Amino acid sequence: MARKSKTGFLEWLPQQQLVQNAFLDRIRDRFERFGFTPLHLRAVEPLDVLLAKGETDKEIYVLKRLHADGDSDAGLGLHYDLTVPFARFIGENAGQLTFPVKRYQIQPAWRGERPQKGRYREFIQADIDVVGRDKLPLHFDIELPSVLIDILDSLPVPPVTLLVNNRKLMEGFYRGLGVEDVHQTLRIVDKIDKVGRDGVRKMLGAHLDETTIDKVIALSEIRTTDASFAEQVRALGVSHPMLDEGVAELVAVMEGNAHLREGAIVADLRIARGFDYYTGTVYEGMMAGFESIGSVCSGGRYDNLVSDAGGKGRFPGVGVSIGVTRILGVLIGDGRLTGSRQTPTAVLVALNSDADRPRAYAVARALRERGIATEVFHEPLKYGKQIRYADRKGIPYVWFPETAGAGVHEVRDLQSGEQVAADPATWEPAADKATPSILET
Amino acid sequence: MARKSKTGFLEWLPQQQLVQNAFLDRIRDRFERFGFTPLHLRAVEPLDVLLAKGETDKEIYVLKRLHADGDSDAGLGLHYDLTVPFARFIGENAGQLTFPVKRYQIQPAWRGERPQKGRYREFIQADIDVVGRDKLPLHFDIELPSVLIDILDSLPVPPVTLLVNNRKLMEGFYRGLGVEDVHQTLRIVDKIDKVGRDGVRKMLGAHLDETTIDKVIALSEIRTTDASFAEQVRALGVSHPMLDEGVAELVAVMEGNAHLREGAIVADLRIARGFDYYTGTVYEGMMAGFESIGSVCSGGRYDNLVSDAGGKGRFPGVGVSIGVTRILGVLIGDGRLTGSRQTPTAVLVALNSDADRPRAYAVARALRERGIATEVFHEPLKYGKQIRYADRKGIPYVWFPETAGAGVHEVRDLQSGEQVAADPATWEPAADKATPSILET
Repeated sequence: MARKSKTGFLEWLPQQQLVQNAFLDRIRDRFERFGFTPLHLRAVEPLDVLLAKGETDKEIYVLKRLHADGDSDAGLGLHYDLTVPFARFIGENAGQLTFPVKRYQIQPAWRGERPQKGRYREFIQADIDVVGRDKLPLHFDIELPSVLIDILDSLPVPPVTLLVNNRKLMEGFYRGLGVEDVHQTLRIVDKIDKVGRDGVRKMLGAHLDETTIDKVIALSEIRTTDASFAEQVRALGVSHPMLDEGVAELVAVMEGNAHLREGAIVADLRIARGFDYYTGTVYEGMMAGFESIGSVCSGGRYDNLVSDAGGKGRFPGVGVSIGVTRILGVLIGDGRLTGSRQTPTAVLVALNSDADRPRAYAVARALRERGIATEVFHEPLKYGKQIRYADRKGIPYVWFPETAGAGVHEVRDLQSGEQVAADPATWEPAADKATPSILET
Repeated sequence: MARKSKTGFLEWLPQQQLVQNAFLDRIRDRFERFGFTPLHLRAVEPLDVLLAKGETDKEIYVLKRLHADGDSDAGLGLHYDLTVPFARFIGENAGQLTFPVKRYQIQPAWRGERPQKGRYREFIQADIDVVGRDKLPLHFDIELPSVLIDILDSLPVPPVTLLVNNRKLMEGFYRGLGVEDVHQTLRIVDKIDKVGRDGVRKMLGAHLDETTIDKVIALSEIRTTDASFAEQVRALGVSHPMLDEGVAELVAVMEGNAHLREGAIVADLRIARGFDYYTGTVYEGMMAGFESIGSVCSGGRYDNLVSDAGGKGRFPGVGVSIGVTRILGVLIGDGRLTGSRQTPTAVLVALNSDADRPRAYAVARALRERGIATEVFHEPLKYGKQIRYADRKGIPYVWFPETAGAGVHEVRDLQSGEQVAADPATWEPAADKATPSILET
């Protein structure tokens, strides 16, 4: 069982941790195949960096030294996402980077939110972002959904649907309607999943008239699996240059991803994303059967998040984040995924007596040299006890060094019970037993 | 250049980060080959767990929510090492684990210390520990140095010498001498590198007589590359059962590691380690030429650190920690190690025109399917500009899709300038160019 602390800090047992590591290895491998380079940034940021992005409601954890002897650490906090620190890093290091920068980053983030299913106070995110200097082609807005779906489809998770929208489309539409407080309207529409359509109507009623509200609601209800949303938007009879720009961008994203599997990507015009820094495309991925935990990946285009130290450079970016802990919190936490064993060890070398240690160690060294994870049992207990240890950890093979005579070794497959002669210089475990695998239940 | 923040938080540029990742991959691979299983524990611990181990001087970072609405997060702090959280985890989960537990853990830790060369406020540690139930054979104290040296010798770092001592040996010796405050004496002797022999003599003078001080100093000056330290200890004429036990253990560790290269392991009887929880073997690794930054790996035996929830179980452990950030802080930071390029990308697919995108993407897909890291250039700029981008990032190959006619591709090796026909289904990069490598300067 998972350790689900009441305080919202999740930890895995070895058998579960091996699943998370396999996920992260896969994600990392795919990120690299697409040409993203790793960064690992500090977890600690100046508070002014964390607060400048309008995220004061994200329950930032502030740091204070237990034995503070001055102010040198005043004003530091833990990052609540990986985008804001990356933006800070780009601003600081622009002169030493080659643009566009394509980076991935897999690290925990912290938010002091109320813990609930799918929400933890410490959680691992796997992010990719592309940041350009002065400009960034729409190409990357189009490419990111392909990368995401390629990765998620390669993992043992229920199908993910990526909902896509465009902030320019929404803002342009609202402006075309004469709405004055565009951002407030966005924030209210973003709550439609929480408060429902009537709730949104009511909240909008405070500053918009009925006809305008009808149009705002009508826009938010458009949802298509291809670029045909554009006609439905036009049918609402609103016009604004920013709306046209947003529609064109979203059409390009949908058409550029027409090769993805049915249902992989959907234009959903109610998706706004909470973060204030998005300026164009926004993404939000929902996992089939787990819609109640919220989005399992999300992101978008941010044209103004990054500025260099002098504040003069412009570095538009676009990125997406996979909520690894949110996904695994339900899939491992509910027991749907588990590891095939409790350790990477493929072979336990049995120890017959203390005098036999050198022989046992020699076997282990020979196997490890060829990449086979091997441990030597630590005490010359009865073989039955050594085998039971292997069995309990799920170690698939037990090796008996030279028990059948000098130079003659035997290895037992614990699952089949079969025991055969083997040479440490050439023997190989079965392909499906060399490393732990993920079991789906 | 590295980002060395004045506040002690270190960050790497892409070319440097690839070196750190290669280090961590190697360490992780070796840990797994030796049969250690991964754990990733939360960074946040209850303060009482952090403070119970006598480490109040470690400058713990305490957390406070920016918008605290109650006490639910009161009393949390960031871990200052990976051993104390692991001990807490074992105590909480003992019923669900198979003992001995052999785990590795690679995570950052935080200490609000004064930043200096080799000391950072956030730093990555790579730990292995073995914890038994009720008992833990000395076998593991003997095995850990072999694992450590195997790993460190496989990395491009200066040779590391592992200094080993035993707390029982020191404490038993002091008790045999009639010293009353054994722990204070330990702590003073531990400062010998900082304050020198005369400084230690002076500090010991406050509670010990001259003859006793002479013996204490004489013990601390024993240093042998084999088990012969034991004779030198006996020659000092002190006797105590705990001393005998400590000597026997340290002899076993030295003899059990006699196969290691010359200078890999040294019995050094002044090594005490600051942490109060060590009860037997202690380790401290020094990197040749970088002794001034302190130990680059360290650890020891702790028989009483872990207790289960009821406080009745006994879980003796032994572990070592590699100070990854301390090592790389000087080796990358001083420019001795750098990555061969700025990205994992091996192939940049050139883009001739927007109409050519499908062809370029098809090539990229075919290469990625075979594990070759590939990106498509994002705009149909002049080939010269696309090649310059590849060159600046150190991408070794540029692919020109079907430029020589339908189905005929060419790939250019940017280093040699050679351009040859290639098939995306079968072409392979040179082995030394497939992934970034570490350059030593």
